[in-house]
Amino acid sequence: MILMVNGFACKNPSLVQADDFYFDGLRMRGNTSNAVGSKVSLVTVEQVPGLNTLGISMARVDYEPGGLNPPHVHSRATELFTVLEGTIEVGFVTSNPENRFITKVLQKGDVFVFPFRLVHFQRNIGNTNALAISTLSSQNPGIVTIANAVFGSKPDISTDVLAKAFQTSNEVIENLQFKF
Amino acid sequence: MILMVNGFACKNPSLVQADDFYFDGLRMRGNTSNAVGSKVSLVTVEQVPGLNTLGISMARVDYEPGGLNPPHVHSRATELFTVLEGTIEVGFVTSNPENRFITKVLQKGDVFVFPFRLVHFQRNIGNTNALAISTLSSQNPGIVTIANAVFGSKPDISTDVLAKAFQTSNEVIENLQFKF
Amino acid sequence: MILMVNGFACKNPSLVQADDFYFDGLRMRGNTSNAVGSKVSLVTVEQVPGLNTLGISMARVDYEPGGLNPPHVHSRATELFTVLEGTIEVGFVTSNPENRFITKVLQKGDVFVFPFRLVHFQRNIGNTNALAISTLSSQNPGIVTIANAVFGSKPDISTDVLAKAFQTSNEVIENLQFKF
Amino acid sequence: MILMVNGFACKNPSLVQADDFYFDGLRMRGNTSNAVGSKVSLVTVEQVPGLNTLGISMARVDYEPGGLNPPHVHSRATELFTVLEGTIEVGFVTSNPENRFITKVLQKGDVFVFPFRLVHFQRNIGNTNALAISTLSSQNPGIVTIANAVFGSKPDISTDVLAKAFQTSNEVIENLQFKF
Amino acid sequence: MILMVNGFACKNPSLVQADDFYFDGLRMRGNTSNAVGSKVSLVTVEQVPGLNTLGISMARVDYEPGGLNPPHVHSRATELFTVLEGTIEVGFVTSNPENRFITKVLQKGDVFVFPFRLVHFQRNIGNTNALAISTLSSQNPGIVTIANAVFGSKPDISTDVLAKAFQTSNEVIENLQFKF
Amino acid sequence: MILMVNGFACKNPSLVQADDFYFDGLRMRGNTSNAVGSKVSLVTVEQVPGLNTLGISMARVDYEPGGLNPPHVHSRATELFTVLEGTIEVGFVTSNPENRFITKVLQKGDVFVFPFRLVHFQRNIGNTNALAISTLSSQNPGIVTIANAVFGSKPDISTDVLAKAFQTSNEVIENLQFKF
Repeated sequence: MILMVNGFACKNPSLVQADDFYFDGLRMRGNTSNAVGSKVSLVTVEQVPGLNTLGISMARVDYEPGGLNPPHVHSRATELFTVLEGTIEVGFVTSNPENRFITKVLQKGDVFVFPFRLVHFQRNIGNTNALAISTLSSQNPGIVTIANAVFGSKPDISTDVLAKAFQTSNEVIENLQFKF
Repeated sequence: MILMVNGFACKNPSLVQADDFYFDGLRMRGNTSNAVGSKVSLVTVEQVPGLNTLGISMARVDYEPGGLNPPHVHSRATELFTVLEGTIEVGFVTSNPENRFITKVLQKGDVFVFPFRLVHFQRNIGNTNALAISTLSSQNPGIVTIANAVFGSKPDISTDVLAKAFQTSNEVIENLQFKF
Repeated sequence: MILMVNGFACKNPSLVQADDFYFDGLRMRGNTSNAVGSKVSLVTVEQVPGLNTLGISMARVDYEPGGLNPPHVHSRATELFTVLEGTIEVGFVTSNPENRFITKVLQKGDVFVFPFRLVHFQRNIGNTNALAISTLSSQNPGIVTIANAVFGSKPDISTDVLAKAFQTSNEVIENLQFKF
Repeated sequence: MILMVNGFACKNPSLVQADDFYFDGLRMRGNTSNAVGSKVSLVTVEQVPGLNTLGISMARVDYEPGGLNPPHVHSRATELFTVLEGTIEVGFVTSNPENRFITKVLQKGDVFVFPFRLVHFQRNIGNTNALAISTLSSQNPGIVTIANAVFGSKPDISTDVLAKAFQTSNEVIENLQFKF
Repeated sequence: MILMVNGFACKNPSLVQADDFYFDGLRMRGNTSNAVGSKVSLVTVEQVPGLNTLGISMARVDYEPGGLNPPHVHSRATELFTVLEGTIEVGFVTSNPENRFITKVLQKGDVFVFPFRLVHFQRNIGNTNALAISTLSSQNPGIVTIANAVFGSKPDISTDVLAKAFQTSNEVIENLQFKF
Repeated sequence: MILMVNGFACKNPSLVQADDFYFDGLRMRGNTSNAVGSKVSLVTVEQVPGLNTLGISMARVDYEPGGLNPPHVHSRATELFTVLEGTIEVGFVTSNPENRFITKVLQKGDVFVFPFRLVHFQRNIGNTNALAISTLSSQNPGIVTIANAVFGSKPDISTDVLAKAFQTSNEVIENLQFKF
């Protein structure tokens, strides 16, 4: 019988192997040829079974020059972000009613914190590729990319709702929805 | 000496009064004369000191016809939503990569769940005022209204970042930022 | 294979439907024709599968004039109580050694907190039916009704034990046990 | 400056002494000359400062022959009960709607579990003094003794409420309240 | 279908029996004829199914004169230790960088706390057998005995690693590994 | 008034600055001129106030050739370990009774998990300096270095205790204690 914990198989401790705790998928650069010029390569419980219940995961993030990891929130995690190569602008916005925008330019070796579930982004503002390691305080952090969730859901949220929410015309909204 | 727990004063148990657990601020209709036509009246640990550490809070939400409680996420809470008057369309979007839009039309007495930190909204689609009670699984749930966080932060997120994230022109973004 | 979490089925996220998060069972008045003149209609993970792991649930409580929701404790929840119709006296008793009785009369729109697992009750002291919404900080709050647990268990707790605990005669205890 | 955690002082780790983790108050028998013939001597964070935040506490319970530790619930703890001397009948009642009474007679060395916040009691059914050690899964478990909370609160819960809850006459209730 | 919670079967509440919450295995003295002269008899979720999810467990510890419960840490628990017979020296070491050694001699009835996951031990320094009850703040506390983990793992940690860690020669390490 | 949470100051959200979430101390190589040839540079709540309550922290670990991060446990954290430069052997030992030694050689870009509170170590087995990033699932993970805790405590654990625990002579133990 297979035991399931949090929806993932839970191995008998006497059968675990080193490979249950190991992942070599970060050796290679992620493919950044896409609309935003960045690529997030995750290491969560899906890639490393031994992470289950251990409350932590991570990601390698590659950026081409100008590449953006667009505004998103993590459903279940704080993020600790370390720059390994390049110069990266980071920022997050505090919750209502302040909505303060906190931002910083990071160099190689710098660390920045994105607190639990606030909207945040990173952008490579240098002339070369950039690379960062993100660590997340959950084995299954969840990602809600704002633009995708709002303008790219399946099916679409009705244009009226979004036009009112963003205080703009239906036409602008339809244009945005068309892109996603 | 005043003891602080979670940043709020913690009364000596032998001094608590019934009023520390009581709130009459929901007796009156909220003022919905604003851009979105809805008003959220919160009952959290700020209004009711006795809620501190108890892990729950609530809100009364009033809507005029067409009124929208715009897309938002709660930083620390699931929401249980009950319609008391009117007909309300509700919806939420699941996290990446599916971004499924789950929606429903609710009548008086209906209950709907907005799971932890997914983007969700409600809209009064009837011809009369609507009223709902929201309950939240934290005494301090936190609210991140998407449009405010993205287009209305102080200072502004740079136009370049948002244009790339929403795959639109700087002009459209500047227009949106101007509204907030 | 069906995944179970907390003893309830956990659906594949790509298969969830709006109805997994929806409940219309609160549309109708509960039947209060019983010994205490009140009826609790629950909305927990048993009625709404989507509540599983989300840490919240609720109930509609109907009261006829004089109706009582008798003294009880919730095993795993704080309760946030809102009066929708009528005038309701509420109260709870703090833990040993104080045993202070904290009480209040609530009108329509008033909110009251019953802290984690203290003995509490509500009573309709008006001349008309009353209605309230209770929200609970657990998807599976548990209810221990004092009179039922003490005098109505199956099998009975021995009369000697209860006579000593309540400092009364075996005859009084047998009478009370007979009612439940 | 004194740091407070959970309302108790939190010593600088470099200043803690062995005595912060030590308690000799269980060396002596508790005084059981009272209405129920038992005495609970607690070891919680109030007696042992080093227990703060550590999530555990304990009690020595002494019983004279026939002595009863009357029906009660712990607000924040499961209890693990070990008999050191004598023969003790124990029992707990499961929550609504079953209200099953689970009971057992324990001898020296036997262990029994009282699950989180269910009503439970113990009684010395032997002819000699009995002694037990209770351990509780919280540094501050909280005790709600049913009879005290219901009939001995200050001020009294109104007689009408209790008469209806226990389905008996006001006279019986007044008699019970008078004892506490 | 059998529900599993935390990897252990979770009975239907209506089928639980008193014996699911009961254990008589502490009635007898543990066998202390071994290299360290002590014996730990555990009562965890493995012995008492009803402990599952309840966050507590316990052990009886027997010691012959001079018997040692050698330095160990519990992976998931604070320990509350009560002496029932004899005179026991106890101690724990605080974490880096202080590494303070906190120690005390306990008599019958004395209680001592071993905080979450610090290295600790107990030793019978009297001339007679000693007996203690340990309670642990987890139903599945985990035990890492230092000497076994470091010198007795299967397969061995390489001699070089341990020689450097303990700043001694390979020969001393090989000798220690040979014993375990 | 300064609010304290977990023993650290908790800033008013409207006063936080980007620098509360930022740390540049990882830009430089740690000094590995010490007995074990490695250096751990921490980024916890002590270095980055904004980490408080966020449940995560990290460290940069530098190793000279042959350098060892000696066997240790983290009191409150799982560790996710990523090699940035060099070839590093890692290992951990499972808890009693198995004490299995799980080991792996990692190259640049490889990730390995050290589960909650098991004894683990890393060693640079290449000919060049090595560098790794460790992330820990607590803002205040705690470190118990085995050799320091057992042989280097202040004051010393008595020689008799350790000789029995490690099944060796008092002379060997005294030698080990002398080194620390």
